[in-house]
Amino acid sequence: MARIGIIGSDGRMGHALVNAVEAAGHTMAGGVDRGGDTAELADECDVLVDFSSPAALEGNLHAAIGAGVPILIGTTGLEERHHAAIDAAAQAIAVLQTGNTSLGVTLLAHLVRDATARLGPDWDIEVLEMHHRMKVDAPSGTALLLGEAAAEGRGIDLAAHSERGRDGQTGARAEGAIGFASLRGGTVAGEHSVILAGEDERITLSHSAESRMIFARGAVKGAVWLVDRDAGRYTMPQVLGL
Amino acid sequence: MARIGIIGSDGRMGHALVNAVEAAGHTMAGGVDRGGDTAELADECDVLVDFSSPAALEGNLHAAIGAGVPILIGTTGLEERHHAAIDAAAQAIAVLQTGNTSLGVTLLAHLVRDATARLGPDWDIEVLEMHHRMKVDAPSGTALLLGEAAAEGRGIDLAAHSERGRDGQTGARAEGAIGFASLRGGTVAGEHSVILAGEDERITLSHSAESRMIFARGAVKGAVWLVDRDAGRYTMPQVLGL
Amino acid sequence: MARIGIIGSDGRMGHALVNAVEAAGHTMAGGVDRGGDTAELADECDVLVDFSSPAALEGNLHAAIGAGVPILIGTTGLEERHHAAIDAAAQAIAVLQTGNTSLGVTLLAHLVRDATARLGPDWDIEVLEMHHRMKVDAPSGTALLLGEAAAEGRGIDLAAHSERGRDGQTGARAEGAIGFASLRGGTVAGEHSVILAGEDERITLSHSAESRMIFARGAVKGAVWLVDRDAGRYTMPQVLGL
Amino acid sequence: MARIGIIGSDGRMGHALVNAVEAAGHTMAGGVDRGGDTAELADECDVLVDFSSPAALEGNLHAAIGAGVPILIGTTGLEERHHAAIDAAAQAIAVLQTGNTSLGVTLLAHLVRDATARLGPDWDIEVLEMHHRMKVDAPSGTALLLGEAAAEGRGIDLAAHSERGRDGQTGARAEGAIGFASLRGGTVAGEHSVILAGEDERITLSHSAESRMIFARGAVKGAVWLVDRDAGRYTMPQVLGL
Repeated sequence: MARIGIIGSDGRMGHALVNAVEAAGHTMAGGVDRGGDTAELADECDVLVDFSSPAALEGNLHAAIGAGVPILIGTTGLEERHHAAIDAAAQAIAVLQTGNTSLGVTLLAHLVRDATARLGPDWDIEVLEMHHRMKVDAPSGTALLLGEAAAEGRGIDLAAHSERGRDGQTGARAEGAIGFASLRGGTVAGEHSVILAGEDERITLSHSAESRMIFARGAVKGAVWLVDRDAGRYTMPQVLGL
Repeated sequence: MARIGIIGSDGRMGHALVNAVEAAGHTMAGGVDRGGDTAELADECDVLVDFSSPAALEGNLHAAIGAGVPILIGTTGLEERHHAAIDAAAQAIAVLQTGNTSLGVTLLAHLVRDATARLGPDWDIEVLEMHHRMKVDAPSGTALLLGEAAAEGRGIDLAAHSERGRDGQTGARAEGAIGFASLRGGTVAGEHSVILAGEDERITLSHSAESRMIFARGAVKGAVWLVDRDAGRYTMPQVLGL
Repeated sequence: MARIGIIGSDGRMGHALVNAVEAAGHTMAGGVDRGGDTAELADECDVLVDFSSPAALEGNLHAAIGAGVPILIGTTGLEERHHAAIDAAAQAIAVLQTGNTSLGVTLLAHLVRDATARLGPDWDIEVLEMHHRMKVDAPSGTALLLGEAAAEGRGIDLAAHSERGRDGQTGARAEGAIGFASLRGGTVAGEHSVILAGEDERITLSHSAESRMIFARGAVKGAVWLVDRDAGRYTMPQVLGL
Repeated sequence: MARIGIIGSDGRMGHALVNAVEAAGHTMAGGVDRGGDTAELADECDVLVDFSSPAALEGNLHAAIGAGVPILIGTTGLEERHHAAIDAAAQAIAVLQTGNTSLGVTLLAHLVRDATARLGPDWDIEVLEMHHRMKVDAPSGTALLLGEAAAEGRGIDLAAHSERGRDGQTGARAEGAIGFASLRGGTVAGEHSVILAGEDERITLSHSAESRMIFARGAVKGAVWLVDRDAGRYTMPQVLGL
């Protein structure tokens, strides 16, 4: 049973995290929000979970290092300098940073990497995603994560091979391209498919999220896995033993 | 049993048409290709089927009028002046022009129009299609036909409400938009889905083509339906009694 | 703004109904549960919504008649005698009884009926559903409702043409059959597809429920539609104007 | 470039094999059918491909051993004694026997085994398949092959955990069950999905065959892989290096 401290406990994700901590039989060490004392929280927990904001990241890392506790970071919108700060912190404590804490998506990315590593370049790769009508960017971060896994499996650079936002006279599909398409509508929590289209056959590897609770549940699982871990920077695939 | 004349009998679609005529128990009156005598063919058949080229269209209409036989036109890439020629011909003979002769797609468009007419504007409309890697334009003509049906059902103008090629910081979905997304890969003959996404529920209306034979079969059915029909311009929905 | 009384307000569906009443801007006239005074509730509301139990049905109808208010019945597991009691009550008040209050499913059934009425018998009909692991019966009531719609469209008797639980040496598909298949797993709220499989093409008409709230929302919409309606027995399709 | 001999060259699969041999740039050493001289064919080829019948199996193995050439066996409906004969032949020559020669299905089975090995028992496993209306057995052999892969991944016995042909009052899903459901209709060449349903999320791994050519193409690839291989019994996963 781990004592878990939540940074960013007020928002929709914060509430989901509190529920997930309790459902998994662990203890809420407490939560802080804008202006709260993260250092104090760090002293009272076995691991921190941070879904707050990029602006708060450095202070949060500092609190974790001060208390010598690991930290899981699910904050999105990180830039170069945030990653540099995380790398520096990982010299002193265990840190896991990820753009998607769902165990299902983590496994799916692993399967995609494996499949594209084994299939020849005559299998075209397409990534399709659907999200609710309020989402402001396309493709989703998870679609890009899956595209990255596909590119790794095939041994190519994603940026150099992406085919996004097809519209109009596109010409035939570029050889070796990884295509992306985004649907938006209603209240869809998140659906992703990687389609591998060969001659006369297709393999489709999909993930469907029924609610946002899966991200909270995966974050708690990742946080508990971090407790008592050596200093270093970890990833979600390691939590699943992938 | 109808005697059917095929204009454009050499290509892949031409061969499919010949097979479809025979499979349906009708008679091939003959076929012509570039340079063949369409007027002679028209004299020997009950109905013409034209899958040749826009350049040949006016000559073909002329031959049909001369012989007094109806004509089904499946040629794509028609422009304003071709449609004007068809309208003129329809004063003298029965003409059916369509961008998609599949009976399944024709019915799907009807269902889409009906569904969007009955659902409120809080149901978002998305059109998804997948085709083989050689296709050079996006969205497919059939996707646009389905988007048009959705726009008609909702009573809006498609061009003014299309959301195509989403990529990057798109912002939230525009209210009342009809979204389009295109996948390309492998040898897919053609798959289309219209997704109606409401609050916590979705209705999806899809069509999947397993082979190009369905277009030939639908063309033959449409051609036979045209035999002995009064002069006028007809549509595929009329063939199905929609 | 209608005053709505909920019979069976304690369960999961009861809570969803209370939320749906408020979200739609109507007023909760009150709720009763086992042992509560339904007659008193009936006097204070414009319409009753009953998701309690078959055993309570007759008492609830009696209360509605006494107060002269309409009633929407979403209780499942009704038998012949319950339907007889509903028919009798419908002489005095407006009654809407249904096995599925989702507007999306109601529209889907309408589209299925229309499609099967227009497609020839060479299009095979299959109904597929998936629900959570706790569901105890198969196929789902909604799958049967969709199969019934398909049978009506085709003009056949469902019971005489059902092909359920395929396993082992089944032989080829019976001509004119309507097939059913059921998947169970996880926490799936409810997914249904009607597949119309022709030669080389397929039309698929699907509904996906993301949460049980859609049933509550549809029930409230149906209840409001019942207010001030003449005595008689009504159906969900009428609420949608189908 | 391999010289390939086809046993059972007359049927639909035989024709597909001849096309696949040529398309892949190999040479048809010849084909035999009922009553043909398999021993003579074996002498003139580098590898035999057998899609004939169980009754012919022992004679075919004998011919392969006599000529010292490997053999790929795609015949279905084999029984214990056929497998014993194959094991005996594998002492002398390289033999690959499989119920599905598609490379896509072979890879899918590998991904399914990997996924189920990594996911806990709280993820329910369902196998769904759809085939054309003429198929006489359910579930398909490939569905069972995928169920077997899932059972291996989870470390359970498939026969003891199968839930097939759900219909009526089934009760809740059995813990640890692997469910199967079969759809039949139209001309579907073969679609398979393995659904892994967890709490609030689902992973779906699917294969779709657009034509039977994929089985011929995979058989040719497997046959060429067998040429000059040591005596022994091989499997399709080995052809893909899985």
